[in-house]
Amino acid sequence: MKDFRYYNPTRIEFGKGKEKNIGKYISEYGVSKVLIVYGSDRIKKNGLFDTVVKSLRDNGITFEILGGVQSNPVLSKVYQGIEIAKIKGVEAVLAVGGGSVLDSVKAIAAGAMYNGDIWDFFTFKAVPNKSLTIFAIMTLAATGSEMNNYAVVTNEQTREKFSFGGSSTYPTVSVINPELQATVTKEYLAYSAADIFAHSLDLYFSASYLPEYIAGYVENILTTVIRTTEILLVDSSNYEARGEFAWAATQALNFTTFCGVENNRFDTHFIEHTLSAEYNIAHGAGLSIVVPAWMKWQKRNLPERFERFAQKVFNVHSADAGIDALLKWYKKIGTPVTLKEGNIPEEDIPMLIEKLLVVAKMWGAEKLYTKEMISTVFNNAK
Amino acid sequence: MKDFRYYNPTRIEFGKGKEKNIGKYISEYGVSKVLIVYGSDRIKKNGLFDTVVKSLRDNGITFEILGGVQSNPVLSKVYQGIEIAKIKGVEAVLAVGGGSVLDSVKAIAAGAMYNGDIWDFFTFKAVPNKSLTIFAIMTLAATGSEMNNYAVVTNEQTREKFSFGGSSTYPTVSVINPELQATVTKEYLAYSAADIFAHSLDLYFSASYLPEYIAGYVENILTTVIRTTEILLVDSSNYEARGEFAWAATQALNFTTFCGVENNRFDTHFIEHTLSAEYNIAHGAGLSIVVPAWMKWQKRNLPERFERFAQKVFNVHSADAGIDALLKWYKKIGTPVTLKEGNIPEEDIPMLIEKLLVVAKMWGAEKLYTKEMISTVFNNAK
Repeated sequence: MKDFRYYNPTRIEFGKGKEKNIGKYISEYGVSKVLIVYGSDRIKKNGLFDTVVKSLRDNGITFEILGGVQSNPVLSKVYQGIEIAKIKGVEAVLAVGGGSVLDSVKAIAAGAMYNGDIWDFFTFKAVPNKSLTIFAIMTLAATGSEMNNYAVVTNEQTREKFSFGGSSTYPTVSVINPELQATVTKEYLAYSAADIFAHSLDLYFSASYLPEYIAGYVENILTTVIRTTEILLVDSSNYEARGEFAWAATQALNFTTFCGVENNRFDTHFIEHTLSAEYNIAHGAGLSIVVPAWMKWQKRNLPERFERFAQKVFNVHSADAGIDALLKWYKKIGTPVTLKEGNIPEEDIPMLIEKLLVVAKMWGAEKLYTKEMISTVFNNAK
Repeated sequence: MKDFRYYNPTRIEFGKGKEKNIGKYISEYGVSKVLIVYGSDRIKKNGLFDTVVKSLRDNGITFEILGGVQSNPVLSKVYQGIEIAKIKGVEAVLAVGGGSVLDSVKAIAAGAMYNGDIWDFFTFKAVPNKSLTIFAIMTLAATGSEMNNYAVVTNEQTREKFSFGGSSTYPTVSVINPELQATVTKEYLAYSAADIFAHSLDLYFSASYLPEYIAGYVENILTTVIRTTEILLVDSSNYEARGEFAWAATQALNFTTFCGVENNRFDTHFIEHTLSAEYNIAHGAGLSIVVPAWMKWQKRNLPERFERFAQKVFNVHSADAGIDALLKWYKKIGTPVTLKEGNIPEEDIPMLIEKLLVVAKMWGAEKLYTKEMISTVFNNAK
């Protein structure tokens, strides 16, 4: 085990109907005015918005509203939220939606307490150390944003998709009611599964040291995702499977998998963020294209770990067989595995490589993310 | 997944030499005066005490001292600590030791902020809602006390070993340096392994509903404990194994295993606490006697789960074979499996049953902990 610090103050309220208590949870922290942020009008049609509003009113909490957050959330919407938060003097921001809504909320909450441009946080020009209080009601399980302090936002002017995180941007309370996640399409369920896989495999296959305890911990997340995704594709109303899927998503990126691990990276996220910034492809769909292609590049560096993965997760017996099994599983659940299937023109590869090399330089990671590495991954994804 | 709330604000500082930073960690919380609590003089001989004192002084923190906490910590020592804390006006209590020291510290921290008798918390006459700030440096991995809010203390007058926990009794920072745990005897390592097993198996074999994700999570803890214990019995200086063992101990009782589980109980702890209160047997040694005896009683209620355990943890293929494998493993690592091996007179069984029935009544659990159940478990332990 390598040295680590673990601290995660987010309170999770998991279960049926817990969104009805959101006003109570918020009032426990002395908050009396919030900004509600959401995505499409679906939450107005299905009654969730009314439930939230009623709970806030019952607890004497006033609110402002900002809808229209899209997946691959954009910076202009974040600016809008920051303006409302500052002008109206809200004390907290409440996300009602999936990871994109919550990521926007984290940026709004930090931006409302910052006098500069919020994009400074994403480009390492400033570090966020205070935020409005953050609450969330999750309608999609995938990103793990509900129990971590990170946010990913796309600057649509520059087509850059970057992330930031500070000590103040953990949600204070996140509500996870699997029933609210039961109407997600099969397509998005598959993308979500691919997202959870990528969070797990980025760590599993990049760490220069991975304690066996953590390897087993991650494998348990992966086998849970495989089992529950397959149940949900047949029976979308299966509450138990929906619940385990949601909790596996949370556990995959609440940094419990980081404990004792050395030098883990986010290689596939690094590459995918440029795809979704450029083509607005669903993040999970981008990841199912990049992950196997990256694994083919990375396997030479950690042959034993690739064999272990093959054995433990897919019950096959070689590194290559493990990658093939993952590719087949992605195809089975219906998420793309090639650039073509993701409608990404192969002739754009040189442009994508150039964009990634610029980001790599900003991160000070040019030695890791070389032209050879990036182009090999793209070629593997053809 | 059943409904749950998860909230655990303890910050873990894990790794080599982290105890040297304890003064810095404490000062981050604005604390300027602490009570150091420890067990035997071992920490004075091996230099740990001096390291702690230096770190406190370097950070301008003054301190009082209370040594002499024994395993199966006693109430009289807690009273002593509360008195010092109140008279000297300390703001925090720092445990330097194992679970017994930290449990005493939790009781001291809560008792110092309470005007009645601290034993009221253990007998459900009062609920602790404020405490002095709690810090810990762990020299033994077993109880998981470093990342939960519970404390177990023995009232040596009444020979009752009870527990309490409140929202204020989570450690604020716990330091886990596996190197500090490397000098534990082989005997106590085995008892510690048995304690972690009991925390895991109490949940695994009592829950009326256990999500498959959590089953896998617990099995990963158990197989980690088996693997690392066997390494450490041969090579006590193996840092990686020591580290994984320590982290598995923490994870087994930081309530992550409780998420989504229904009706889990602490049956073996309920029974064992009376043994260690009565005979001052090491808690882990008492547990390795009680656990298999209780499993033999419990297996009829959850036959499929016992078969799963047998398969996943010991790679054998029936409930009985799983229990046998556990018994053999306990013998192999050198922890007792019968009352006789634990020097507990079999003729005391009727007296022990009567004591347990009194506790069961206090807990309102007479229907669960019947005379038939308790006597069957003791008879299975002959």
